[in-house]
Amino acid sequence: MSGKLILIPTPISDTEKYSTHIPEIQKYISVLKIYVVEEIRTARRFIRSIDKNVVIDELQFFILNEHNSAQVLGDVLKLLKDGHTVGMMSEAGCPAVADPGADLVFRCHTESIEIEPLVGPSSILMALMSSGLSGQQFSFNGYMPAKSDERQKYITILNKTAMAGGHTQIYIEAPYRNKQVFDDLVKYVSPQLWLCVAMDVTGKEQYIKTASIKWWSTNPPVLGKLPAIFLIGKHS
Amino acid sequence: MSGKLILIPTPISDTEKYSTHIPEIQKYISVLKIYVVEEIRTARRFIRSIDKNVVIDELQFFILNEHNSAQVLGDVLKLLKDGHTVGMMSEAGCPAVADPGADLVFRCHTESIEIEPLVGPSSILMALMSSGLSGQQFSFNGYMPAKSDERQKYITILNKTAMAGGHTQIYIEAPYRNKQVFDDLVKYVSPQLWLCVAMDVTGKEQYIKTASIKWWSTNPPVLGKLPAIFLIGKHS
Repeated sequence: MSGKLILIPTPISDTEKYSTHIPEIQKYISVLKIYVVEEIRTARRFIRSIDKNVVIDELQFFILNEHNSAQVLGDVLKLLKDGHTVGMMSEAGCPAVADPGADLVFRCHTESIEIEPLVGPSSILMALMSSGLSGQQFSFNGYMPAKSDERQKYITILNKTAMAGGHTQIYIEAPYRNKQVFDDLVKYVSPQLWLCVAMDVTGKEQYIKTASIKWWSTNPPVLGKLPAIFLIGKHS
Repeated sequence: MSGKLILIPTPISDTEKYSTHIPEIQKYISVLKIYVVEEIRTARRFIRSIDKNVVIDELQFFILNEHNSAQVLGDVLKLLKDGHTVGMMSEAGCPAVADPGADLVFRCHTESIEIEPLVGPSSILMALMSSGLSGQQFSFNGYMPAKSDERQKYITILNKTAMAGGHTQIYIEAPYRNKQVFDDLVKYVSPQLWLCVAMDVTGKEQYIKTASIKWWSTNPPVLGKLPAIFLIGKHS
């Protein structure tokens, strides 16, 4: 009988105000021996934070990232088919959502291996629920282009989409580009739209604010080097 | 000093396989006296399941739904401004995501009242991470039109979007229409696309499967009267 692939969310802030894992995660961490992870160091640290009794050196880690080889997928699938249960974790939040992992999950489906997703933090979802913008329809667009002129074009296109439809438009950004992206959003998004900036969600520096583009243009926030989500939407 | 609006996720299955709330929710439930909820009966049941010591009759409930009156929003905002902390819960999952609540959150932003989102289950997000379809870009489209001919048109348009772009397309459906929607998806979605059906996520009847449209057409699942999420996407 095949094993299961357990999808284990991890903390989304380095300075959590409160513990964001459900008891079930602790249960799995205490028994799992094989992991597929984005980075071993972070994974070890998380495992240790959940259960100090786990002997880390007895665990087997596979690294899963954007450049992943067919070899790693094959090895992990073989273990799953042989009946081993495997935990999958990404660097922060839910694996396979704005993070690697979907390829392995997809392969599990084609091989009829069961997937067990666990509850945990997602900065995208928590930013959305906190934004006051529509959660009835929304689009997550990932990262913005790094180059300034491409980003301008990109924002202009998605601004049109946000103006035309009812979908809240969501973006994520690498912390070191927060300020540039914020400045471009205020510059190129229609003044009729609303912008929510959600930074360090669940963390000690958590900052979540929705305001009009006009308001933001004269009240720019102090954007630290923390993970941020940007949401744009209409509001009647 | 103003109070805070605490966004409290609730269970997404009536038959949870494991507890899906983080300890912080218990902490809030034990002290909160004022709630904004979608339905009082469900809210009471959830509160009782978390902390048996809470005296339910001492709690104040406001009902928040699609037809919400300005009066209720005004009353709750006044309490928040007077320094009371208020808990917000919807029927299942995260408030304000495919559920009511966004209007109150929005008003809190315009009145500079702090929002505190808590971690909890979202069937949309858990279905997405378990689907193996792209979680790098995705769109949540809410409910499908109820009428058959409108649904056909709707699926055809979103099928085009899924074929053209890289966004995984996500839908939610009322349990009693699961079968009709599944049949229409198999009929009108391009055979090159993949369909994930995620039913009763976190529950004892949890069923999550991704397969080709072609495969589904000859292997229809037994869709019970349970909440389901449908996801459509490309895979190379």
